Amino acid sequence: MKHATRTAPQKTASVPEEVKTKDDHAEKGDTAKYVYLFGEVEQVEEKVGRDWQQVRALLGGKGANLADMTRIGVPVPPGFTVTTEACIAYLSTGGKFAEDVWEQELAAVAAIEEATEKKLGNPDNPLLVSCRSGAKFSMPGMMDTILNIGLNGEVAEKWVERGTDPRFVYDSYRRLVQMFGSVVLAVPDEEFEAVITGRRKDAGVSSDAELSAADWMAVTAKFKEIVKTHSGSEFPTDPYQQLKQATEAVFKSWNGKRAIDYRNAAGIPHDLGTAVTIQTMVFGNRGNDCATGVAMSRNASSGEAELEGDFLINAQGEDVVAGIRHTQPLGDLKKRMPQLYDEFQEIAVKLEKHYRNMQDMEFTIEKSKLWLLQTRDGKRTAQAEVRIAVDMVEEGLISKEEAVRRVQPAQVDFFLHPQLEAKARAEAQLMARGLNVSPGAAVGIVAFDADIAERWAKQDGRDVIMVRPETRPDDVHGMLASQGILTSRGGRTSHAALVARQFGKPAVVGVGELDINLDARQMSIGEQLLINEGDWISLDGTAGEVFLGKLPTEVPDVSNPYLLKILSWADEIRTLEVWANADYPNDARRAREYGAQGIGLCRTEHMFFESERLPVVRRMIMAKTPAERKEAIEKLLPLQRKDFEGLFRAMEGHPVIIRLIDPPLHEFLPSYDQLIQELADLKVRLQHFDTLIEIDNALAEIQVKSHYLERVQALREMNPMLGTRGVRLGILIPDLTTMQVRAIFEAACKCAKEGVDAQPEVMIPLTCHANELKVQQTELEKAAREVMQEQGIHIKYKFGTMIEIPRAALTADELAEFAEFFSFGTNDLTQTVFGISRDDAEAGFLVHYIQKKILPENPFASLDSGGVGKLMKMAVKLGRETRPNLEVGICGEHGGDPQSILLCHQLGLNYVSCSPFRVPVARLAAAHAALQEKA
Amino acid sequence: MKHATRTAPQKTASVPEEVKTKDDHAEKGDTAKYVYLFGEVEQVEEKVGRDWQQVRALLGGKGANLADMTRIGVPVPPGFTVTTEACIAYLSTGGKFAEDVWEQELAAVAAIEEATEKKLGNPDNPLLVSCRSGAKFSMPGMMDTILNIGLNGEVAEKWVERGTDPRFVYDSYRRLVQMFGSVVLAVPDEEFEAVITGRRKDAGVSSDAELSAADWMAVTAKFKEIVKTHSGSEFPTDPYQQLKQATEAVFKSWNGKRAIDYRNAAGIPHDLGTAVTIQTMVFGNRGNDCATGVAMSRNASSGEAELEGDFLINAQGEDVVAGIRHTQPLGDLKKRMPQLYDEFQEIAVKLEKHYRNMQDMEFTIEKSKLWLLQTRDGKRTAQAEVRIAVDMVEEGLISKEEAVRRVQPAQVDFFLHPQLEAKARAEAQLMARGLNVSPGAAVGIVAFDADIAERWAKQDGRDVIMVRPETRPDDVHGMLASQGILTSRGGRTSHAALVARQFGKPAVVGVGELDINLDARQMSIGEQLLINEGDWISLDGTAGEVFLGKLPTEVPDVSNPYLLKILSWADEIRTLEVWANADYPNDARRAREYGAQGIGLCRTEHMFFESERLPVVRRMIMAKTPAERKEAIEKLLPLQRKDFEGLFRAMEGHPVIIRLIDPPLHEFLPSYDQLIQELADLKVRLQHFDTLIEIDNALAEIQVKSHYLERVQALREMNPMLGTRGVRLGILIPDLTTMQVRAIFEAACKCAKEGVDAQPEVMIPLTCHANELKVQQTELEKAAREVMQEQGIHIKYKFGTMIEIPRAALTADELAEFAEFFSFGTNDLTQTVFGISRDDAEAGFLVHYIQKKILPENPFASLDSGGVGKLMKMAVKLGRETRPNLEVGICGEHGGDPQSILLCHQLGLNYVSCSPFRVPVARLAAAHAALQEKA
Repeated sequence: MKHATRTAPQKTASVPEEVKTKDDHAEKGDTAKYVYLFGEVEQVEEKVGRDWQQVRALLGGKGANLADMTRIGVPVPPGFTVTTEACIAYLSTGGKFAEDVWEQELAAVAAIEEATEKKLGNPDNPLLVSCRSGAKFSMPGMMDTILNIGLNGEVAEKWVERGTDPRFVYDSYRRLVQMFGSVVLAVPDEEFEAVITGRRKDAGVSSDAELSAADWMAVTAKFKEIVKTHSGSEFPTDPYQQLKQATEAVFKSWNGKRAIDYRNAAGIPHDLGTAVTIQTMVFGNRGNDCATGVAMSRNASSGEAELEGDFLINAQGEDVVAGIRHTQPLGDLKKRMPQLYDEFQEIAVKLEKHYRNMQDMEFTIEKSKLWLLQTRDGKRTAQAEVRIAVDMVEEGLISKEEAVRRVQPAQVDFFLHPQLEAKARAEAQLMARGLNVSPGAAVGIVAFDADIAERWAKQDGRDVIMVRPETRPDDVHGMLASQGILTSRGGRTSHAALVARQFGKPAVVGVGELDINLDARQMSIGEQLLINEGDWISLDGTAGEVFLGKLPTEVPDVSNPYLLKILSWADEIRTLEVWANADYPNDARRAREYGAQGIGLCRTEHMFFESERLPVVRRMIMAKTPAERKEAIEKLLPLQRKDFEGLFRAMEGHPVIIRLIDPPLHEFLPSYDQLIQELADLKVRLQHFDTLIEIDNALAEIQVKSHYLERVQALREMNPMLGTRGVRLGILIPDLTTMQVRAIFEAACKCAKEGVDAQPEVMIPLTCHANELKVQQTELEKAAREVMQEQGIHIKYKFGTMIEIPRAALTADELAEFAEFFSFGTNDLTQTVFGISRDDAEAGFLVHYIQKKILPENPFASLDSGGVGKLMKMAVKLGRETRPNLEVGICGEHGGDPQSILLCHQLGLNYVSCSPFRVPVARLAAAHAALQEKA
Repeated sequence: MKHATRTAPQKTASVPEEVKTKDDHAEKGDTAKYVYLFGEVEQVEEKVGRDWQQVRALLGGKGANLADMTRIGVPVPPGFTVTTEACIAYLSTGGKFAEDVWEQELAAVAAIEEATEKKLGNPDNPLLVSCRSGAKFSMPGMMDTILNIGLNGEVAEKWVERGTDPRFVYDSYRRLVQMFGSVVLAVPDEEFEAVITGRRKDAGVSSDAELSAADWMAVTAKFKEIVKTHSGSEFPTDPYQQLKQATEAVFKSWNGKRAIDYRNAAGIPHDLGTAVTIQTMVFGNRGNDCATGVAMSRNASSGEAELEGDFLINAQGEDVVAGIRHTQPLGDLKKRMPQLYDEFQEIAVKLEKHYRNMQDMEFTIEKSKLWLLQTRDGKRTAQAEVRIAVDMVEEGLISKEEAVRRVQPAQVDFFLHPQLEAKARAEAQLMARGLNVSPGAAVGIVAFDADIAERWAKQDGRDVIMVRPETRPDDVHGMLASQGILTSRGGRTSHAALVARQFGKPAVVGVGELDINLDARQMSIGEQLLINEGDWISLDGTAGEVFLGKLPTEVPDVSNPYLLKILSWADEIRTLEVWANADYPNDARRAREYGAQGIGLCRTEHMFFESERLPVVRRMIMAKTPAERKEAIEKLLPLQRKDFEGLFRAMEGHPVIIRLIDPPLHEFLPSYDQLIQELADLKVRLQHFDTLIEIDNALAEIQVKSHYLERVQALREMNPMLGTRGVRLGILIPDLTTMQVRAIFEAACKCAKEGVDAQPEVMIPLTCHANELKVQQTELEKAAREVMQEQGIHIKYKFGTMIEIPRAALTADELAEFAEFFSFGTNDLTQTVFGISRDDAEAGFLVHYIQKKILPENPFASLDSGGVGKLMKMAVKLGRETRPNLEVGICGEHGGDPQSILLCHQLGLNYVSCSPFRVPVARLAAAHAALQEKA
C-alpha cells in the first residue's frame, strides 16, 4: 500500500478535520501560539520578556534546551514543542485541545518534513519522531518517551524493501507498539515483556540481541493483539493518530497520581502544566556511516581540557550506555571520521562557551550527518571540579566568584582525606553502617583496646583500627596511634567522634548492630559475622561504612595547585575569618598550613590526660589538704607553660584563644562502673593468692581503688553536663585556673623576649552570670599582670568568655562589661537550648526525630537557626551594644559546617573556628556566604 | 560654788563670745536657720515644701519624729535639732561651725530653759540634756548618745544637797564623763570599764547595782584622770563646752570609717550629713512618783486592741529592758497612777491615729509628769498583724489596700503550718541544720524506710518522721503516712522537697552531716550523737532545723477570720489568678478550699507510682512486643479515668490542666545501683540455700532482676534531665499518651453527662520544636474528638504546652500556632537557661555561689528576672503575637514565691499555679503585685 506524497496536510480518514481550519487560523494570526519550532526560541523569549526561567516554564526544560542549542547553531534533529499553556488549557477544559493547538502541531510537523525532506506516514520516505514530556522542573512520574512515531506495517515493509536491516526495522516497530501501548493505552508492560520472554524461550536464545527479524515481526504482531484486547481498539497505524494520542497522553500524565504526589512532596505548584516535545528520530545504527556516542567536553576525572568519551559505529545510544558492546574511545572517531570529529569538537567548544560549564553530550551520526541529541552540565570528580573552575577563569569563561561558587565544600573536603578506591569499595563486603562522624578511609587490623592499638602501631609498625564500645579520655593515646576508630555506641559528638575529627582520624561510631566481646577479643554482627582481634577491616568515615578486609586506598593531594588557587580566591571574597581548634603545637602548625588565621579554641585539659601528667592531675583531685592540692597544681605549671610556648611559636602573630579547664573533675578519674568492677575482681582474686607479697599488693591496690571510688562517688553527678564544670570549677578551685593563667603569661613573656609575637586570649568557659566573670576574671587578670611585672614585659592580651549557656546569651550585655571577646560554644548551647543531651539523644530519640522530620536536621551537625541562631543573634547584638569592638566567634563543632558558617556570616561574627582539617572547607564556605549575601 | 541665775546668756569664761553676736543675728534675721526647736516643725515643713522625707533629711529620723510627736501634742521632753545642713557646712569648711550655728544652738538652749524652768549649769536648778546623732537613714557606726550633759562637780554636789539620791547623782555624773570621754575624746572604753571592774573587786561586790554613792564618786574622779591622761586636757566641767564639743563630735562621726563603709555598702550618698538632737533629760528613778516603761498600743501576740506593756516604779529605762528587776504589767499603772494611765492611753490612741499603725512606745514619769521618749511601729506576730490590719480598716484608720499591703506573705504562710512552741524550741537540743524546703513543724519517731513508716503510722497510729539518704518515687506512700521528712542528701527541688511541699509535709533535706546507716537502723551526727530507729525527733521545716526529742507544737488556725478577711480583700485587688498544682482529688479539694481558681498542673505520672499500678506500668516498660505493651497501657486506662473524674468533680467549673507523662521511663524501674546490689546479694545467698524450692525461687528472682537490669541499662542516660522524657516519650510511644487523652476525655464526658462542668486542658511537656506539637497534638486531638463522638457529647477543652526549654520560649510564636495555652515550667527552664542541674548544684557549687553573692539568690527559689524572666517575657510576647488570647501561666515551684509572683504579674501572665498550701500566700502576693504596679 502506498500513500501519495503529501506536500500539505490532507483531509483523509486518518488526518483530522481540524487540519483545514488550522491553516485558516494561522493565516488569520489572531489566536494564541501554542506550538514553537526549535528555531523559534526568539519568539518565545519575546513573548515572556527575555526571562529564561519563563522560557523553561513555557517549553519545559527539555524543549527549552533543544531550542537553545538550535539557536546557537548546534545540529539538533528538527522538532518542536507544544507549550505548557496548551497543556493547562487541555486539562482545564476536561480534555479538549484548546483552539487550534492541533492545527499548529500539524503545521510544525509540516515544517519538520520540509527541513528533513521526509514525510510522516510516507512509506517511501518516512519521517519518524519521538514524543517526550517536559515540565519546568524535572519530575518523576511524568509520561515516558515514545519513540518511532510514524511507523506502521506499510512503512516498515517499504523501509526493509529499500534495504534497511529488517531486524532493526521490526525491533523499532515493536518498540513503538510497546511504548504506545503501555504509556498511552495503559497496557501493563509485563504483558509485553512476557511475549518477548516467551519468544526467547521458543527461539532457544538467552538475550534479545539474538532474536531475529522474524522474531521481532512475530512479537510486533502479538503486541498489536495485546493492545486490541486491552484497549478495545486497534493499534493506530495512522501516524497522525499516533501523534495526537501521544500528545494527549503527555498532557494527561500531568495529573497522574505519582506526579501529583511528587509535586505535593516537593512543593511544586500544580498549575504549571507540562510541555510536549516532538523531535525527528535519528538512527546511529543504519550502517557503517552511522555511529552514536557520549562525550564530556573535559576530562571528568582530572578536569583536563580534552574531549573524552565513548562511541560505537552502527549502534543505538542504549548500546553505548548498556555496556553490552565494547565501546571505542572518542579518539578513534578522529581516525574513522576526522571531519565529523572536528565538527563535534567545535560544537563542544561552542556549547561550553554558551553554558560556561563542562558539557556532557549525546550524539548520533546518521549517514555521516552529526546530530547532537542532548547536552547538560557534566558530572565530575572533586579534582576535576576545581581544575575546570580554575581553567575556565583563565579561559575567561567565568569569573573568580563563579569559580569559587561552583566548588562545593564537600569537594574541598575530599582533598583532605584518603579514600577507599572506588572499584574495590564497590566489590567489598559491607559489614555495617554507622554514623559518619569523621571523613576519610582507614584500613587496619582490629585492636580492642588503646594499649594494644598503641603497641601494635608503634612497636610493630602495623596499621590499626581501634574498636571500642565507646571511648574515654584515657583511650586517646590508642586513638592517636590508630588509622581509624570504630565504636558501637555514641553519637555525632561522642568522645570518639570529637577526638577523631580533632585529629583527622576517620571514624564510624554508633554502629548499634556491632556486638563487641572484649573478653573473647571478638566482635560480631548478627549470627554470621565474627571478627577476631587482629583481623583486617576498612572504614569509610565519609559514608559511615565498615567493610571486611583490607581495601586499597587512594590519597588525593591537598597541595593540588588548582585547589590552592580556588582557596586563595575564596580568601579574597570572604569577610569571615577562619580559625582552628587546636590543643597541641603540631595541630596549630597544621592549622596554619591549611590557612587558619588564629586558634579559636585550645582545650587545656586535653594536656592533662597525657600519661606523665594524669597522675599529677589525679593527685590534685584526690588531695586531702589545700597544701597537697597546691603542690600538685604547681607541678602542672611548667608542663602547661611548655605547651603554650609551642602554641605561641606555631601561631606567631596570630591570636591564640586558650580555654581554662572545662570538664568535671571526675572525667580525670577511672569511671564509677569500672572501679566497682575492678574492686569486685580484686576481691575475688584475693582469695586465690598464695604468697604474702601477692596479697599485700592486692590489698594496696584495693585501697587505692577504694579511695578513688570514694572520690568518684562524691564527684558523681546526676547530670554532669549541667554540673560542676567550667568557670564553676575555676571559682571553686581558683588555684587551678590561676596556675593556668600564670603558665599562659609566662609562656607568652618568654616568647616575646625571644621576639615571637604571642597573642594570648584567655577564655572562661560555661559562664552564666556576669558575676562569675567579675570574680574569676578579676582574679586572673591580676595574676596575668603579676607575671608581666615579674617578667618586665607587656603582652597584648584579651580576656573573654564562651557563650554556651542560654543565660549567657540573654545577658550578653552584662557579660561584655568584662569580656573582650565572645566565643559561641554551640555544642553545649545547642544542648541547653534544646534541652537535649547529645550523648543520649544522638543514639536515641533524635534519630527518630530526624527520620520523622520532626527536626529538619540534626542540630548538632548544622546550627538550628530558628532557636540557637536566634539566641546567638541576640547575644551578638547585646554584646556589641556594650562593647562595639567585641570580637565574636564560634568554636563549636558547627564552625566547620558550611550551612552553619553561612549563618555565622549572617550574624556578623568575626570568625569561625573549626578542626584544622576543616579549615580549607570553612574558607570556601565563608566565601560562599559572602557571595550569597551579595546575590 | 554657786552660779548666779542666768536669765540671759552671759559672757563668762565658759560661755563663748559668740553668744552676744547671736542675738544680733537673730534680730537681723538675715542668716540661714540651722537649729529648730521640736515645736518648730511647721517652719521646717514650710522650708522643704511639706515633704516629710525632706523633713527627715534635714532633722534626721529621730529629730523629725520627736518634732512630729511634739506637734500633735504628745508630751515630749523639750529639745531641739541642729540640721544636717549645719553638719555639711561644718564638714565642708574643714571643721568650723557655719555662720551662727552655735549662737542658734544657744538660743535654743535658752528656749528649753524657759520651757523647763531650769538652767544649764545652774547648780540650784540644773538643766541636763542628752545629745544624739540622727541621719535620714538609720546607720550603724554613727556617734552614740551622750547623756547628762550639764552635770559637773558643783551641780552634782548641790543636787545631792537638795535631797537627790547621791548614788543616782554620781552614777549619772560618771556616765557623762565616760560617754563624753569615749565618744568625744576617743578614750578607749575598756579603760573606763577596767576602773569599774577594779572598784567592784575592791568593794567585794559582783554587780554595779551594789556599788555605793562613794564608789561612784571615786570612779568619777578616776574617769576624769583617764580623760586628762588621754586627751591632754581636763574633762570640760563647763556645760556649754560639753554641749559644743558633743555637737562637733556628732558632726565628725559622719565621716568616721565605719559610717563611710556602711554607706558604701548600703548605697547611701555621702553628702547627706547627720543632724544633732539635744533633748532635756528626764528621770524615772527620782522617787516613787517616778516610773519608766515600754508599751504596745495593741496586743503584739493576738492583735487585740488593748494597751499592753511593762513598767517599773522609780527606775531607769534600761532596768525595764534588762529584765534585772521584776517588771509590773501596765494594768497595774492604772491602779497606781490612774490619771497618768488615762493620759498615756489617750496618747497611745493619738499616736496610732497619727501613724496609722500599732505603736511601740517608751515613756518616763518624772515627779508625776508623763513624758513620751520614743514611739515607733510595733513588732507583732502574724496573728496580730492580720487582726490589727483588719481592725484598723474597720476603725477607718487605713484602707483595705493598706491592710493587704501590710500583711507579708510569710505571715500568711504561718497560718498554714503547725509550729514548734517557741519556748520549748529555744531550750531544745539542736541536732543539725539543713535546707528548709517545706515549712512547718513535725514531731515523730524516726523510721528509716517507707514501709516501716507506713506501718507504724497506719497500723500503730504513731507519729513518724521518715528519714532517708534521699527519697524516690516508690517512697511516696511512706512520706504520705509521715508527719515530716528528713534526708541527708538532695536540694531544694529534690524529690523529697517537691513531694513534701506538694503535700504540705514539713521537711528538712540535704543535712550533709547526717550519717545514716540503714543496715544498723541508726543515724549519727559526728562522733557524739546516735539516734536509733524509733527515737523521737522534731523538725522545723520553716527554719530547716532538726531537734532531738519530742517538742510540743502549736497550730495556728487557717480559718482565722481576720486572715480570711485579708485574703478576700487581696482577691478584690489582684488581677493575677491563683491556681494550684494537684495530682489527686483530695489535693484539688484542699486547693479549692484555699481559694485556687483552677488546677495548673496535674502530674499524671504520680498516679503511676501507686502500689497497684506500678506493676502494670513496669509491664508496659518491659514489654517485648507492641501488643504486650498495648495490653498493659489499656489496663491503665480505667484507673487514670477514675483519677481524672475525681479531679473534675473537685474542680467543677474550673479549668484542670493535665500534663501528659513526663519523666523518663527508668524512673518507674528500680535504680541501677540497687539492682546491681540486689543481684550480687542474691548470688551470694544462692550458695547457702539448702532446699530446691529456695534455690528455684532465688533463681527466678535473679532472672526477673536481670531482666530489669538489662532494661534499666538500655534506658540509662548520661544526663536524664535532658533525655527521653516529656513529649519525646509521647512521640516514641504514642499509645501511652493517646490512652491518657482517652482517659481524660472519657472522664470529662462522664462528668458532663452527670451535669458536672469539666474543663480539661491537656498539656504536652518538654516541647522544644513546633513540629513536636504538630505531630503529637494532632494525634491526640483526634483521639479526643473520637471519645466525644463515641460519648455523643462535646466538652470545652484546650490543648497546650509547657514552656520549660529555652528553644520553646524562643520559638513561642511557632508553638502558639498549635498551643492554646502556655504553662511555664520554671524549674526545668531555670535549669536549662542556667545550665545547672539542680539535683547536683543545690547541694554543691550553688551554695558557694549564693554565699559569695555570685548569684544574688537561689534561682530555683526565686525566678531569675535577668535571664529566665527575660526569656519568659519574650515567650509571652511571641506567643500572643500569634494567638492574642493565649492563656499563659506558670506551674513551676516559683508559682508560690512572692517575688516570682510579682514578676509573673509584670509579665502579664494569667495565673500562677502552686502547691495547695501556698495558694493563700500566692493570693496575697498577687495582690501585692497589683498594688505595686499602681504605686
